[in-house]
Amino acid sequence: MTASGWRLPDGAEVRLAEEVPVALSFDGVTQAVMMATPAHLEEFALGFALSEGLIADAAEITRQEIETTEAGIEARNWLAAPAGARFAERRRATMGPVGCGLCGIEQLEQARRPLPTVRAPRWSLAPEEAEEALAALRGHQPLQDETRAVHAAAFWCPGQGLMLCREDVGRHNALDKLIGALIRQKIAAASGALVMTSRLSVDLIQKAATVGIPVILGPSAPTALAVSEARAAGLTLIARAHGGLALYTAPEEAPA
Amino acid sequence: MTASGWRLPDGAEVRLAEEVPVALSFDGVTQAVMMATPAHLEEFALGFALSEGLIADAAEITRQEIETTEAGIEARNWLAAPAGARFAERRRATMGPVGCGLCGIEQLEQARRPLPTVRAPRWSLAPEEAEEALAALRGHQPLQDETRAVHAAAFWCPGQGLMLCREDVGRHNALDKLIGALIRQKIAAASGALVMTSRLSVDLIQKAATVGIPVILGPSAPTALAVSEARAAGLTLIARAHGGLALYTAPEEAPA
Repeated sequence: MTASGWRLPDGAEVRLAEEVPVALSFDGVTQAVMMATPAHLEEFALGFALSEGLIADAAEITRQEIETTEAGIEARNWLAAPAGARFAERRRATMGPVGCGLCGIEQLEQARRPLPTVRAPRWSLAPEEAEEALAALRGHQPLQDETRAVHAAAFWCPGQGLMLCREDVGRHNALDKLIGALIRQKIAAASGALVMTSRLSVDLIQKAATVGIPVILGPSAPTALAVSEARAAGLTLIARAHGGLALYTAPEEAPA
Repeated sequence: MTASGWRLPDGAEVRLAEEVPVALSFDGVTQAVMMATPAHLEEFALGFALSEGLIADAAEITRQEIETTEAGIEARNWLAAPAGARFAERRRATMGPVGCGLCGIEQLEQARRPLPTVRAPRWSLAPEEAEEALAALRGHQPLQDETRAVHAAAFWCPGQGLMLCREDVGRHNALDKLIGALIRQKIAAASGALVMTSRLSVDLIQKAATVGIPVILGPSAPTALAVSEARAAGLTLIARAHGGLALYTAPEEAPA
């Protein structure tokens, strides 16, 4: 259930977006708890694992289980042995002694993880197609139409239009669900552009680069860090500037 | 520095919002790392500590230090002895053995922390004043005017208008900075309404209730969980519904 009815004090009825704590666990260890729209949770966990670099391939998740409790939903994932060993190792490395006064620095460094260089796409997007993609997204947001409280992430393939769309109360969750759906439906990340309803912050750039989506389109301006990371990763970033859509970064600019 | 210049591939220049990893540490232990606008960081740490219930009173932070490194900024806070002992105890309690398979449930429960009941305000807000407060906020967002990439949180006092406004790339950071600023300027949380530019999710309701802000105003619809938590805490929630501002919850509805 992604929306529910609510009676306002004046008697009117409105539809509200559901928002539920979702714990993503891997091999029995909770990696993150997010407030999310309770739908497409297997895709969410798969997309999160890929976009955060916990796994490199969808086959590394061998089993998934969605457990609904009173406190929220747990999306449990089991990893193939090599991925499980890497995950455990990474976890041990980041646990470290607490209270050493250096934790802040270590954790700050993790916030800016190294990104792969994304290969420039073999296709290109005309400016009018970018406008078209953003306009098309507005027609594929049924939960937003109902509740006015959710973001969307969509995938646009040149010549084919909007292929997939996922909605969520969290913009990064919407992107993770989209990534999971792309993989499930065997749509290559390199074959299209990510179209977001939200502002473009650095976490979205990191996720797109990690899974190899080469082009990102958004309706509001990116941050400085989002632009510099997109440039370094060779991503094409198209977003709203004062007065219209603008190209912020293009792959030929990426450092060699 | 909260914004910087960027030259687009076509030669045009734009201003981009800075977004920097900020680690909030207490007694040498990092509690959170957030991507944030690098300004008002002492207020940010103070507001975060209060709104997350790490401290109950501003005086429980005895010293603050802002350390800028290449990887980001660390906002270091030292706690008075009783608060420090509580913090250490709470931390020990939540560390627990990992990999027990129950962590997900425990962490899900933490996502919905118990909220205090907020006392109903002694003042009231006329519908036209709610519209006025939202309109006034649009005139107090210099960084948004410059970059089109940041949210704002403001405090509106009936009869006095907009008292304070803080901007940040993260909406919960903007709220924490506003809370820190309110405390520093000795403005009682009970004396006014929180006015947000963002959607109203449950984390904002939790923070407002924890510090005792009785009324919340927002330009887009709240989630179902935000509405039910606001109702339980006795908050007044006014937000955009289809067709105009609506009262979602009022304090007289709160369970006795």
